[in-house]
Amino acid sequence: MKKERLIFVTNDDGYAAKGFAAAIEVAREFGRVVAVAPRETQSGRSQAITMYEPLFLEQRVKQEGLDVYSLSGTPVDCVKWTFDHLMGDGEVDLVISGINHGSNSAINVLYSGTMGAAIEGSFYGCPSIGLSLTDHSSDAEFGAAKHYAREIIASVLENPLKDGQPLCLNVNVPNIAFEDIKGVRVCRQCRGIWREEFYRHEDPRGKPYYWLTGSYTNYEPTAADTDEWALNNGYVAVVPVQIDMTSYSQMSYLERILK
Amino acid sequence: MKKERLIFVTNDDGYAAKGFAAAIEVAREFGRVVAVAPRETQSGRSQAITMYEPLFLEQRVKQEGLDVYSLSGTPVDCVKWTFDHLMGDGEVDLVISGINHGSNSAINVLYSGTMGAAIEGSFYGCPSIGLSLTDHSSDAEFGAAKHYAREIIASVLENPLKDGQPLCLNVNVPNIAFEDIKGVRVCRQCRGIWREEFYRHEDPRGKPYYWLTGSYTNYEPTAADTDEWALNNGYVAVVPVQIDMTSYSQMSYLERILK
Repeated sequence: MKKERLIFVTNDDGYAAKGFAAAIEVAREFGRVVAVAPRETQSGRSQAITMYEPLFLEQRVKQEGLDVYSLSGTPVDCVKWTFDHLMGDGEVDLVISGINHGSNSAINVLYSGTMGAAIEGSFYGCPSIGLSLTDHSSDAEFGAAKHYAREIIASVLENPLKDGQPLCLNVNVPNIAFEDIKGVRVCRQCRGIWREEFYRHEDPRGKPYYWLTGSYTNYEPTAADTDEWALNNGYVAVVPVQIDMTSYSQMSYLERILK
Repeated sequence: MKKERLIFVTNDDGYAAKGFAAAIEVAREFGRVVAVAPRETQSGRSQAITMYEPLFLEQRVKQEGLDVYSLSGTPVDCVKWTFDHLMGDGEVDLVISGINHGSNSAINVLYSGTMGAAIEGSFYGCPSIGLSLTDHSSDAEFGAAKHYAREIIASVLENPLKDGQPLCLNVNVPNIAFEDIKGVRVCRQCRGIWREEFYRHEDPRGKPYYWLTGSYTNYEPTAADTDEWALNNGYVAVVPVQIDMTSYSQMSYLERILK
């Protein structure tokens, strides 16, 4: 008899976020849930780890089939603590990170704490899914995101590996009415960057400060195979993620110029 | 007449680190230097950005051909502030991040604030080089690293682009005597992961805390084309870096399973 599935849930908006509750709600339909999320918001924390500070843990929920903890670290700290301290190897069937309040499409995959955690989860040999809704507001409506999360989770639990490698997915759901969503599209990461504007102001004692803001520039707005295009055209965007940053196409060039 | 070159230097160990001074020293041989580094150590901060706090800037050095600032944020914040606030487009000829105290080979490229900054720098259309020495100690000896930094910087300034794309390099120098280094090897990112051990202790008031530690597991220790192999065999490892995280080889599989 197959043992009950174990789903690990984390996020980067913190354990109190509405999207975290939405992810836990969906995850519980598939098995027992252990959820460990940052104590405070960790948006934009990427793959960051906490090396120079101790981490404090608190259990927030303990009930049949569900344990929720907060950890005073980054999303990746949450994954590492769970897999390397709480769990034995091979116990977790799936990692879910999210549901994020805000898009993690395109270059955001590099800055995103949500995707940092999803990527980290995949290192432990189980599939992982980063889930995001393109709505930053704290009271965002997660109905459509939950629906597609449920579908994608079911598919991934049935087919967790490709050539022995666990899938790691970056799933973004457009913030439009459920009935307007046209379906799921497998995409590649769109090229483009954030250009920042630094809001400059002065603190109450006259000391200047800068505050990051900015806007995304899409380098290929008409390319229909990208996640940005999918989101802008009413689709749920699913990008399979890999973590080899090597630019193989530049290697022989480099060998020449470094002689 | 060609204008004087402008080199931007940053790091993740903070503006006071010995390796930062080493990078600035080498950079100055190639042109005017603007250096903006985190106020405090930001090791392991990856591609993180600071969204929910203001950033405070201080100028630390102002002399002919050299301006050094500290910013109270992450390495990527330093890059963004410099390129989007201080500089005009196209002004910078090269980004140098480092010289890091400690290795950023293999999977460390994902966690590294040094490489986060180097990658961010490459978004602005100029080549970037992340430089690391495999010695964590604060008084590490950077003589050999400076030598190879100088060689690689010269080559990259001569050949900054491949197919119109700026080079972004992850350079790691082994912590061995200069005369024992066998040369430079162009490599790919080694596969492997960190497995963490969480040091658990109690604070003075009896509250338990966890502190991240761990060790690297190399999945392919005998593969001679990896950065880990190069470092372990006395070479300077140079990995060209790209930022498309799409797993193209999984796309058609995903299309099938998500039907």
